[in-house]
Amino acid sequence: MDIATIVGLVLAITAIMTALILDGGSPAELFAAPAAIILIFGGSIGATVITSPLKVGLKLPVYIMQAFKTNKFNTKADIELLTKLADKARREGLLALEEDSRKLTDKFLKKGLMMVVDGVEPEQVSAILENTVDQMRTRHKQGIGFFTAAGAFAPTFGIIGTVMGLISVLKQLDNPAALGEAIASAFLATLWGLLTANLIYLPVAGKLKAKSEEEAHNRYMQLEGIVSIQAGENPRVVRDKLMAYLPPSENKGDADAKAEGKAPAGNAGRAQA
Amino acid sequence: MDIATIVGLVLAITAIMTALILDGGSPAELFAAPAAIILIFGGSIGATVITSPLKVGLKLPVYIMQAFKTNKFNTKADIELLTKLADKARREGLLALEEDSRKLTDKFLKKGLMMVVDGVEPEQVSAILENTVDQMRTRHKQGIGFFTAAGAFAPTFGIIGTVMGLISVLKQLDNPAALGEAIASAFLATLWGLLTANLIYLPVAGKLKAKSEEEAHNRYMQLEGIVSIQAGENPRVVRDKLMAYLPPSENKGDADAKAEGKAPAGNAGRAQA
Amino acid sequence: MDIATIVGLVLAITAIMTALILDGGSPAELFAAPAAIILIFGGSIGATVITSPLKVGLKLPVYIMQAFKTNKFNTKADIELLTKLADKARREGLLALEEDSRKLTDKFLKKGLMMVVDGVEPEQVSAILENTVDQMRTRHKQGIGFFTAAGAFAPTFGIIGTVMGLISVLKQLDNPAALGEAIASAFLATLWGLLTANLIYLPVAGKLKAKSEEEAHNRYMQLEGIVSIQAGENPRVVRDKLMAYLPPSENKGDADAKAEGKAPAGNAGRAQA
Amino acid sequence: MDIATIVGLVLAITAIMTALILDGGSPAELFAAPAAIILIFGGSIGATVITSPLKVGLKLPVYIMQAFKTNKFNTKADIELLTKLADKARREGLLALEEDSRKLTDKFLKKGLMMVVDGVEPEQVSAILENTVDQMRTRHKQGIGFFTAAGAFAPTFGIIGTVMGLISVLKQLDNPAALGEAIASAFLATLWGLLTANLIYLPVAGKLKAKSEEEAHNRYMQLEGIVSIQAGENPRVVRDKLMAYLPPSENKGDADAKAEGKAPAGNAGRAQA
Amino acid sequence: MDIATIVGLVLAITAIMTALILDGGSPAELFAAPAAIILIFGGSIGATVITSPLKVGLKLPVYIMQAFKTNKFNTKADIELLTKLADKARREGLLALEEDSRKLTDKFLKKGLMMVVDGVEPEQVSAILENTVDQMRTRHKQGIGFFTAAGAFAPTFGIIGTVMGLISVLKQLDNPAALGEAIASAFLATLWGLLTANLIYLPVAGKLKAKSEEEAHNRYMQLEGIVSIQAGENPRVVRDKLMAYLPPSENKGDADAKAEGKAPAGNAGRAQA
Repeated sequence: MDIATIVGLVLAITAIMTALILDGGSPAELFAAPAAIILIFGGSIGATVITSPLKVGLKLPVYIMQAFKTNKFNTKADIELLTKLADKARREGLLALEEDSRKLTDKFLKKGLMMVVDGVEPEQVSAILENTVDQMRTRHKQGIGFFTAAGAFAPTFGIIGTVMGLISVLKQLDNPAALGEAIASAFLATLWGLLTANLIYLPVAGKLKAKSEEEAHNRYMQLEGIVSIQAGENPRVVRDKLMAYLPPSENKGDADAKAEGKAPAGNAGRAQA
Repeated sequence: MDIATIVGLVLAITAIMTALILDGGSPAELFAAPAAIILIFGGSIGATVITSPLKVGLKLPVYIMQAFKTNKFNTKADIELLTKLADKARREGLLALEEDSRKLTDKFLKKGLMMVVDGVEPEQVSAILENTVDQMRTRHKQGIGFFTAAGAFAPTFGIIGTVMGLISVLKQLDNPAALGEAIASAFLATLWGLLTANLIYLPVAGKLKAKSEEEAHNRYMQLEGIVSIQAGENPRVVRDKLMAYLPPSENKGDADAKAEGKAPAGNAGRAQA
Repeated sequence: MDIATIVGLVLAITAIMTALILDGGSPAELFAAPAAIILIFGGSIGATVITSPLKVGLKLPVYIMQAFKTNKFNTKADIELLTKLADKARREGLLALEEDSRKLTDKFLKKGLMMVVDGVEPEQVSAILENTVDQMRTRHKQGIGFFTAAGAFAPTFGIIGTVMGLISVLKQLDNPAALGEAIASAFLATLWGLLTANLIYLPVAGKLKAKSEEEAHNRYMQLEGIVSIQAGENPRVVRDKLMAYLPPSENKGDADAKAEGKAPAGNAGRAQA
Repeated sequence: MDIATIVGLVLAITAIMTALILDGGSPAELFAAPAAIILIFGGSIGATVITSPLKVGLKLPVYIMQAFKTNKFNTKADIELLTKLADKARREGLLALEEDSRKLTDKFLKKGLMMVVDGVEPEQVSAILENTVDQMRTRHKQGIGFFTAAGAFAPTFGIIGTVMGLISVLKQLDNPAALGEAIASAFLATLWGLLTANLIYLPVAGKLKAKSEEEAHNRYMQLEGIVSIQAGENPRVVRDKLMAYLPPSENKGDADAKAEGKAPAGNAGRAQA
Repeated sequence: MDIATIVGLVLAITAIMTALILDGGSPAELFAAPAAIILIFGGSIGATVITSPLKVGLKLPVYIMQAFKTNKFNTKADIELLTKLADKARREGLLALEEDSRKLTDKFLKKGLMMVVDGVEPEQVSAILENTVDQMRTRHKQGIGFFTAAGAFAPTFGIIGTVMGLISVLKQLDNPAALGEAIASAFLATLWGLLTANLIYLPVAGKLKAKSEEEAHNRYMQLEGIVSIQAGENPRVVRDKLMAYLPPSENKGDADAKAEGKAPAGNAGRAQA
C-alpha cells in the first residue's frame, strides 16, 4: 500500500471539501452538472486513447492501481546478498553460484546470475541486462505518457465545456433570473477539468514516474553487482560500490564501521595485492 | 485498423455531443459560425504549411490515414526467425542465409541480411542499418512536427477569431438585443480552435509519435539480431538478447522454460566453451 | 521560390480576411489602430534586438527572404556523383579526383574533396568538415532564435497594448457612447500581437529551422561520402550507405534493382574480397 | 545562515505589504478567507504528496530549513589540501596519505582518499566516487521535484478555489450588496495560490537546485583531485587543474603569480621531464 | 558599447511611448501607481534572490552593465596568431613559443600556451582548458538564470498586484465614480510586470546568453588551435580547422584564394608527405 498516495489524496480532497463548505456550498454541488462530468472524462480519456496504443489505454485501471501499491525493493538486502555471492564466487568459482541463483525469486537478478553461471560473455551479460532495464523504462514511459497527456487534455476540455456552456447562456440572455445558475454550471466544467488533472492524472503520472525511477535505480545497482561478481572483484569493493546507491542516512553506520574497524582489513587487502 | 484511434474518437465526440445536448443545445450550433470554421482551418493549416516543407504539407491526408492504420510488426515472430537464422548461420555459415534472406518481404531485414551474406564488414552493416533507422525517424518527425505545430496554432487562431468577433461586437453596442448571439458566435472560434487541436492535431501527433517509436523499437531489435548473426553468436544468447525487447507478459512462459528446462543446455554450452 | 511559404501565407491571410468579412467587418479595420501596430512591431522587434547581437538584427530582411527561397540541394545527384568519385578513386587513386573536385561549385564538397586530394589525414578531414557543419548550424540557430524570440515577445506586447488601452478606457468611463469603440481599439493590440507572431515570426522560425536541418542532413551525407571515398570503400557500399539518406519513396526502384539484378555482382565482389 | 534567502524573503514580503497598504488595504485582509488558505495548502501539498514517495513528503520541513542554511564548502582550502597531498604522495608514496586521510572530516574526501590508500584500482575509485555524486544528485532532485511540483499545483488550486468561489457567488446573484465582497473573497484563492508558489515553493526549489549544483561542483573538483593524486600527477598540474573550478576573481592573484614568479619553476619542471 | 542593446531599448521604449500618447495618455500615467512599481520590483527581485546564491544577486548591476558592453573577441586575428605560432612551433620547436606566449594579454590563450611550453601532457592541457571553459559557462549560467527567473516572476507579481488591486476595488463597489480609476490602477501592476520582464529581464537574459555563447565559441577555437599546435600539426591544416569557426562571409576570400592560389602548395605539401 503506497501510503503517500492515500495521504495526499485524503489531504487534497479534505481541503477541497472544507473550502466548499466554508464557502457556503456543499460537495453535492460539484455533481450538479452531469454534462460537465461526461465531457471531461469522455473528452480527455478519448483524446488520450487516440494518442496511445490501445493496449496502453486498456491498462488504465492497472496503472491507477500501481499508484496505490508500494515497490517491494529492499536495496540493502540485495546489497548484502550480492556481496555474499561475490565472496562465494571468489572463493569457489562462478559455477558455485548456480544453486543460489536458481532459488532467487527476483527474475532480473536470477536471469543475470544464471547468465553468469552459464558462462555468457561479460559484455553480453551487461548488454542484455541494460537492454532489459531500458525496455522496462520504455514500457513504463507509455503509462506515464498516458496520464501526462490526460492531465494536459482535461483542463482544455474543461475550458471547452465552459465555452460551450457560455455560448448556450449567451443565447438565452432574455431570462436573467436563470443567468447566474447557468454561468455557474458552465464553470463547473472548468472545475472538473482542473480537478481531474490535478488530483488524478498528473499526480498518478508523477507517482508512476517516481516508481519507475526507483525500480530502474534498483536494477542498475543489481546490474553493477552482477557485472562485478562476474569480473571477480573484491567483495569489499563490490560492497563499497553498491553502497553508493543507498542514501547516506542508511549507510552511515556502515561508513563509520568501515572507517574504523575495517580499515586494517583494507590495509591487509592492499598488502596482499 | 488502429482500434484505439476509432475508440478514442468515438468516445470524445460522443461526450461532446452529449454535453451539448444536456446543456440544451444541439450539435448543429457548432456549425452556426462558418467564419470561425474557415478561420481556424485556414489559419492553422496555413501557418503550419509556412513552417514546413511543401511535401510534408501535401502528405497531410496520408498522415491522418496512418493514425487509423495499425503497425504490422510481429516482434515475436521476428525473434523466432532471427534465432533460426542465427542457428543456421552457425552451422552452415553466413552464405547459407542467402536463400532465406532473398525470400523475406520485410525490406529492412532483407537489406541487412543481404549485406551480411554479401560479406560487407560488420561496422558498415551496423552503420548503414542504424542510419536507415535514424533517417526514418527524421522523416517521421516531420509529420509529427506538422501536427504538433497545427495543434499549437489552432487554439491561437481560435483566440484571434474570438478577439476579431468581440471587436465587431464592441462596435455595435447600440443593438443590445443581438449582443448575446454575437458574443456567442465570437466564442465559437475559440471552441473550434480548441476542438480541432485536441481532437485532431494533437492526438494524431501523439499517435504518429507512438507508431514511429514502435517501428524504431522493432528495427533496433532486428538490427541487433542481424549484427549478432554476423558475429556468429550463440543462437541461445541471440534469443535472450532479443527477448528483452518483448514486454514481460509476452516472454514470461519462455523465461520459466529457460530457467528450468534449458539451463542444462546452457551449462553444456559453457562446458564446450 | 519556396511554394509552401507562399501557399501557407495566402491560405492563412485569405481565411482571416474571409472571416473578417463574414463577421460584417472589413480588412481596413485591422489598420484602424496605428498605436497598436507601432507598439507591436516596435516593442517585439526592439526587445528581440536587445536579446541578439546587432548583426543578427540587421539580417532580419535576409532571414525573411530565405523563408521564401528553396534550398537547392539535389541529394540524389550528389549520391551519384560521390559513388562515381568513389569508383574512380578506387581504380585510379585519390589523386585522380583533383580535376573533378576543382570543377565542383558546391563549396563544402569541393573543400572536403580537395583536402582528401591534398592528403590531409582522415580524422582531420572528418573533424574539419564536421566542425564546418556545426558552425553553420550555430549561425542558423541565431536567425531561428531571433524569430522565435520575436514570436514570444509579440503576443506579450499585444497584451501590454491592450492593458494600456483598457487603462485609458477605464479613466474615461463617463463617456459610455465611445466605450465600445475604445475597448475594440484596445483589443486590436492583442490581435496584432497574435497575428504577427503566428503569421510571420513563428512560421518563419519554423521554416528557417526546417531549411537548416535539410542543409545539415545533406552536408552529413556529403561528409559520409567524402570520408568513405578517402577510406577507399567499395563504391557499392558507399552508395548503399548514402542511399539511406533518401526517403524510401525515392530509392525504392533502386532497392528492388539491387535485390534482383545486382546481387550477383555483390556475391562476385564478396568472392574477390 | 543563507543570507540570500532571508534578504529575498524580507524584500518580497515588504514589497507586498507596502503595496497592500498603499492600495488602502491591510495585510490582515489576506487572511480573511480561511477557505482559500486551507484549499491552497491542502490541495497543493496533497497533490504533490501523491506525486512523490512518502519519505520525500515527510522531509518537507528539512528541505525548507536547507534553503535557509549555507553550504559549508571551502573550495579554495580543499584545493590547497589536495595540492599538499599530491605533493606528499609524489614524494612519499600513496601510503603516506593514510594518516592525513583518516583525520579528514569531509566524508567524501575521506572515502576517496582511503580507497586510494587501500590500493583500490583507479577506475574503481573514479566509478565509486562518480556514482556517489550521481546518487546524491538523484536524491537532491527528489526534493527539488517536490517543490517544483508544489509550485505548479499551487496556482492551479488557486484557480480551482476562485472558480469554486465564483460558482457560489453566481448562485446568489439576488443579493447584489454582498456581491463585491464575495467575488473579492473568491479572488483571494488565486492570490494565495500565486503567493505560495512564487514566495515559497518555486524560490525554495531554485535554492535547493543551486545548492545541489554547488555541492556537485565541489565534489567533482575533489574527485578530480583524488584521481590526479592516485595517478601521481605533478602537484603543480593538479593545482592548475583544480584552480579552473574557482571563478577568475578568486584565482586572479594566483594566475598572475604563476605567469611571473612561478614560470621559471615551470620551466625547471619541464627541463626535468 | 553593445549597440544592439541601445538600439533595441530605444526602439521598444519609443514604440511604447508613442502608443501611449496616440491612445490619448501620457508616459507619466505609468508612474501613477507607486504601489504597483514597488510590488513588481520588490517581489520579482526578492523571489529571484531567494532562488540564487547571494553573490549572484549582488552582481545584478554588473550583469546589466555587461548587456551594454561588447565582447572584445577578434576571432580572425586569433586565427592568424595561432597559425603563425603553429608555423613557428613546427620550425623551431614548442619552446620557441615561450616569449610570444608571455606577451599575450588574453589570459586563456596565455595559460594554454604556457602549459604547452611547460611540457604539460596534451590530454592534461586539453582537459584543463576544457574545464576552464565549462566553469566559465557554469558561472555565466548563474547570471542568465537570475534574469530568466526574474523574467518569469515579474509578470506573476504583476498579476498578484492586479488581483490585490481588484480585491480592494471589489470591497468598495458602493463608490462607482472612482471605480474606473481604481481598476485602471490595478491593471498598472500587470503592465509593470509585463514591461519589466519583456524590456529588462528577458532581453538581458538573452543578451548574456548570446555573449556567453560567443565567448565559449571563441574559447573552443583557441583551445583547438592550442591542441593542434602542441600536436605539431601542419600550419595550413591548423588554419583550415580554425577557419571553420568564422562565418562564410568572413572567410570567403580566403576559401577562393586557397582553391586557386594555394592548391599547388597543397599538392607540394602532399608530395613531401
